[in-house]
Amino acid sequence: MKIAILGYGNIGKAAEEAIKAAPDMQLVGIYHHNDCLDCIDADVVLVCTPTREVQKFATLLAARGICTVDSFDIHGQIWSLRSSLDAVCQANHTVSILSAGWDPGTDSMVRALLMAMSPKGLTYTNFGPGRSMGHTVAAKAIKGVRNALSMTIPLGTGIHRRMVYIELEEGADFKTVEAAILADDYFAHDETHVIPVDSVDALNNVAHGVNLVRSGVSGETHNQRFEFNMTINNPALTGQVMVSCARAAVRMRDRGECGAKTMIELRPIDLLPGTTEQNIKALV
Amino acid sequence: MKIAILGYGNIGKAAEEAIKAAPDMQLVGIYHHNDCLDCIDADVVLVCTPTREVQKFATLLAARGICTVDSFDIHGQIWSLRSSLDAVCQANHTVSILSAGWDPGTDSMVRALLMAMSPKGLTYTNFGPGRSMGHTVAAKAIKGVRNALSMTIPLGTGIHRRMVYIELEEGADFKTVEAAILADDYFAHDETHVIPVDSVDALNNVAHGVNLVRSGVSGETHNQRFEFNMTINNPALTGQVMVSCARAAVRMRDRGECGAKTMIELRPIDLLPGTTEQNIKALV
Repeated sequence: MKIAILGYGNIGKAAEEAIKAAPDMQLVGIYHHNDCLDCIDADVVLVCTPTREVQKFATLLAARGICTVDSFDIHGQIWSLRSSLDAVCQANHTVSILSAGWDPGTDSMVRALLMAMSPKGLTYTNFGPGRSMGHTVAAKAIKGVRNALSMTIPLGTGIHRRMVYIELEEGADFKTVEAAILADDYFAHDETHVIPVDSVDALNNVAHGVNLVRSGVSGETHNQRFEFNMTINNPALTGQVMVSCARAAVRMRDRGECGAKTMIELRPIDLLPGTTEQNIKALV
Repeated sequence: MKIAILGYGNIGKAAEEAIKAAPDMQLVGIYHHNDCLDCIDADVVLVCTPTREVQKFATLLAARGICTVDSFDIHGQIWSLRSSLDAVCQANHTVSILSAGWDPGTDSMVRALLMAMSPKGLTYTNFGPGRSMGHTVAAKAIKGVRNALSMTIPLGTGIHRRMVYIELEEGADFKTVEAAILADDYFAHDETHVIPVDSVDALNNVAHGVNLVRSGVSGETHNQRFEFNMTINNPALTGQVMVSCARAAVRMRDRGECGAKTMIELRPIDLLPGTTEQNIKALV
């Protein structure tokens, strides 16, 4: 399979490593968002651009009949993106796998599986400790902030604390900046602590994690307990999941199963190298 | 969807409860293994017979164009069963989902997902504490044993202790029976303790569990840590998983995707009631 990368930030670099480690893939190019994409000759392009540019590039590539994989992560807009990409993929006999990361992504598959195992009950997805990209960007946008890092701390039952580490601009007043952060819509609804530091860079760490718990009912039997935990390097996992989804995209395209799909619509076996027989014997 | 049950032991009874709780299913009959099956009019038959009778009944039903779901649990024979059922399903335009339980079954899906997230590394599946059906049957077969219960105790890294509780036959010698159990191939390779009790029935409990851990490599990044835990009522979960798989079987049949499949070949979304849009909005 010929795989190309579009966008070469944290995720693009991690995807490059995962492609090189894959036994059945060839990296055929790394492109930047302002490159001309007409010359890309690949089975799949991994769209590793910022999330808000995903739709534009995935649409453009799907229209050329190229499979795409992205890690679009705005939960509330996934259905709309899928609907829009699905039409383009169907018309051009290709496959686009969207929101391929760990949440949305593999966590979504775990949530779906737990629903199938216990249809009634509550699932809580607890994130972190780890850096929230969205909250970090929101904090950086506040006047008087030179650099920021917003850590997500899980408090259980899907409730999170925000620990916001900031470097102040020369002459900025901490109390004013703190009040502005606490009033921002990204932070106003959670317990938030703002902490001034000399160097945000010194705190930088791409570790993240999840603790996903469900207590549910199977048939008429209550108290079925499930838990999925992970502690991971965030871009490394996202890049790897995108690469595994690239494999699934090619398999689906080759079977004529065109369209835009989220990860809960994929067969786990399609994510893996090797034959059906090898994987069933090793994993089932 | 019209669902029937074949076999009415622990699993069949749990499946009945799960069918009745499903919003999109109708229970159309409960059959015993010596009933005539020609009159079954169902989309799917859940084959809840002992595992060694699964092949016979699933083949018979698939040959009539009826979808089947079973929880065949002899890991080393799954590929062979799948190959044999696949031919029958293809010829009769139907779907057979085999080994639909929690291990093999949902654990298999988790193992496949973790491989996609970190292709290199080690996964350990630790079972229990809970009753092992196979070991219990093996202990009951020993001369001098009136009743037995073999509990599986996880010691980590996939190593298990066997706690074997036995009621002796009148006049049987405990030391002789203990030696025979320890020499049995089911027990000879594990740490095994044999404990005489007055009543095995007083210990009966269908609780079980799993602790599935993986430390792996995503791309070139090591120390990616994953863990899946559950503590569950065993037949209730198995019955529920079979019922969720019955839904997937009908959906696959209706899309013309015929054949015999294990759970790692299923899309998680097919296991759930509701539309694609509802499930993506709720779970992705």
